[in-house]
Amino acid sequence: MRAVRLHEIDRENGPKNFRVEQVDDPQPAPGELLVAVRRAAFNRRDVFISQGLYPGIQLPCIPGSDGAGTVAAHGEGAQGPALGTRVVIDPTLGWGPSQRIWLRSAQVLGMPHQGTFAEYIAVPAENVHPAPASLSDDEAAAIPLAGVTAYRALVSRGGCTKDDVVLIPGVGSGVQTFVLLFAKKIGAKVIVTSSSDEKLERAKALGADVAINYNTAERWEKDVQAVDGGPSLVVDSVGGDTLGKAVNVTRYGGRVVIYGGTTGDAKIRPYSVFWKQLDIMGSSMGSPHDFAAMLAMFDPSTSSGQAIKPVVDRVYAMNDVAAAAESVDKGAQFGKVLLAVGEA
Amino acid sequence: MRAVRLHEIDRENGPKNFRVEQVDDPQPAPGELLVAVRRAAFNRRDVFISQGLYPGIQLPCIPGSDGAGTVAAHGEGAQGPALGTRVVIDPTLGWGPSQRIWLRSAQVLGMPHQGTFAEYIAVPAENVHPAPASLSDDEAAAIPLAGVTAYRALVSRGGCTKDDVVLIPGVGSGVQTFVLLFAKKIGAKVIVTSSSDEKLERAKALGADVAINYNTAERWEKDVQAVDGGPSLVVDSVGGDTLGKAVNVTRYGGRVVIYGGTTGDAKIRPYSVFWKQLDIMGSSMGSPHDFAAMLAMFDPSTSSGQAIKPVVDRVYAMNDVAAAAESVDKGAQFGKVLLAVGEA
Repeated sequence: MRAVRLHEIDRENGPKNFRVEQVDDPQPAPGELLVAVRRAAFNRRDVFISQGLYPGIQLPCIPGSDGAGTVAAHGEGAQGPALGTRVVIDPTLGWGPSQRIWLRSAQVLGMPHQGTFAEYIAVPAENVHPAPASLSDDEAAAIPLAGVTAYRALVSRGGCTKDDVVLIPGVGSGVQTFVLLFAKKIGAKVIVTSSSDEKLERAKALGADVAINYNTAERWEKDVQAVDGGPSLVVDSVGGDTLGKAVNVTRYGGRVVIYGGTTGDAKIRPYSVFWKQLDIMGSSMGSPHDFAAMLAMFDPSTSSGQAIKPVVDRVYAMNDVAAAAESVDKGAQFGKVLLAVGEA
Repeated sequence: MRAVRLHEIDRENGPKNFRVEQVDDPQPAPGELLVAVRRAAFNRRDVFISQGLYPGIQLPCIPGSDGAGTVAAHGEGAQGPALGTRVVIDPTLGWGPSQRIWLRSAQVLGMPHQGTFAEYIAVPAENVHPAPASLSDDEAAAIPLAGVTAYRALVSRGGCTKDDVVLIPGVGSGVQTFVLLFAKKIGAKVIVTSSSDEKLERAKALGADVAINYNTAERWEKDVQAVDGGPSLVVDSVGGDTLGKAVNVTRYGGRVVIYGGTTGDAKIRPYSVFWKQLDIMGSSMGSPHDFAAMLAMFDPSTSSGQAIKPVVDRVYAMNDVAAAAESVDKGAQFGKVLLAVGEA
C-alpha cells in the first residue's frame, strides 16, 4: 500500500521529511478491523514528531491519528461494523477503565503504532465507529483527535451547559474550533479571542457571540469581563500570560479547563483561585465514552443549539503531504488540514 | 458587657491595639439567639484586620469569628438550642443556597458584624449548634472558622477518602492542623512539611505518617514523591513556589485544593496540569452544610480512622488579648490561640 513515512526528525525542517512510500499492507490481528482509509487529518502532534518535539520517537514511522474510510476486513473474532461500512477511527488505544484518567500505557494512533497516513490501517474493533450520516468523508476524518480533545475539555471535564459563557482564547486551531462548535451546539454563549481579524470573522460565522482581537484591544480582559460579568467557563491551550489573565477574569464559582500550554508557564494568583472558589482542570485526549458522546454531537436530530459540521481548512493530495505539514506548522489554518489518502 | 475592641489600625503595631472595654450588651433580634461566650479563638483574619490588611474595615469593631458558650436568650420566634445549652457558633452569615459558592453578600463574624471577643453575641439561630459532647469549651471554641475551612477544602472540595495520600505543606497553622486531624479521621495517609522540627514532631504525634523539613531536605519534592508515588491530594495555603512544586509532584488524576496563598503568585506548568489531568480547586470558608458535617467529625462513635480533638496552643486571659494577637502574628503557635472571655 501507499503510506506516508518519516525516516528522520529535524527541529528546523521536520515537515519536509514526510514522504510517500510503498509498504506492506497491514493484516488485522484477532479482534482488529482493517480499515481502507479515504481521508486522514493532521494534528500538531504529527508535526511535533517530525521536529523531534515528542517523547519516545521511534523511526521509521507512519504518522497520523485521524482517519475515516470503510471497513475492508475483520480479524479473527472481531465484532464491530460490517464490511464496507463508512467509519471513523477513535485514535486512543488502551485508555483503560477509568473515566478520570487514562492508563499510563495508553497510546495515540501514529507512532509507535502505525498511523492513518496510509491506505490501510488495522485497529481494535472497539476503536471503529460508524461515521455520522450527516458528514462527508472529509468532515468525518476531521473529527477524531481534535474532536474528542475538545469534547472532553468542554463537556466531560468542564461540564458545559446552555447557561455558560465560554471563553475560547486563541480560536482557530483544530481543537478550539471544535470547542466553539460544541459550545454552540449546547447553546452556551461564546467569547473568542485571536490576533487575527480573519479568524475572528470565521469564528463569528460559526456562531461565536463576541470576538475580541487581543492585539488591538486595549485590555482584552476588560472586554471579556464586560460580557455578562465574564466567563463561567474557560477552555485554554495557550497557557502563559493568557492563562493567568483568564483565571483572573473568570466568574465566581467558574471553571478553567486546560488541555495544552503552548506559551509555557502561567503565573497564577492563589487569591483568584481560592476566593472565587474556581476549578482549574487538566484534560488530555478522551476516553472511549467521550469519543462516542462526541460523535453524537454531530447528529442533526438533536434539538438543542445549532446543527454543526467540522471545519475543513483544505484537503491536500497525499503527494503534497510535506506542504500540508508546513501549513500546520505555521498555524495559519482555520479548522483541519486533510490528506486525501484514498478515493473519496 | 466586657468586649475586645479595635479603634484604629496599624500596619506595624496592629496587634497592640486590641483593648478590653465596657460596651452595651447586644439584644437578640427576631430569629436570633443570644450566646454567653465562654471561650473565643483567634484567626489570622483578626490580626490582619488590626493591621489594615483586610478589605472594607469599619472601626471601632469587636473582632473574633470563633466562639463557644451557652444559650442566654432567644429573640422573637427563634428556634434552635434551649436556654443553657452548650453551643458553638458557625461564623459564616448569609452563605446562601449554593453548596458551590457563597453569595457575594456573605460575611464572617467579627467586623463589620460584632465578633466573639465579647461576653455576649447575638447571631441567627441557624448559626448556633450544640457543642460536640466529647469536647471541652476550649476545644469547642477552637473549631469554627479553621475547622470549617479545613473540612471544606479537604472533604467537600478535595473529596478526601481513606485511599488518599494527602500532602499538607506548612503544617502548624490552625487550618492545617484540622486538615491533618480530619485526614487521619478519614483514614488517609498524611505527609506534612514544615521548616520547624518541633512542628513536625507535634504533627507526627497527631498522626502524620511522614514529616519532611523543607529547609533541611535536599529536595522536599523528591522525598514527597518517594511516598507511594506522591500525593493524590494536596491541601495548600502557602502558594508561591510551594504551590508550583506541589502541582508538579501530585499524582496523575490528583487534586490540589487551595484555600490561601501566603507567599503570593505561583508559577504553574500547564503541562503538569493537563497531562496529569489534575483538578486544582479553590476553597474558602464553608457552607452551613459543611459546618454541620465538620462538627460530626468530632463524634468519637464514628468508627473510621482515629478519634480526634482540636489542638489548643494556649488560652490567654481576656486582658492579655494583645499578647495573644502578637503570638498569632508571629505564627509560632501550633493549633489554636484562645481567649478566656467568660467563666469556663
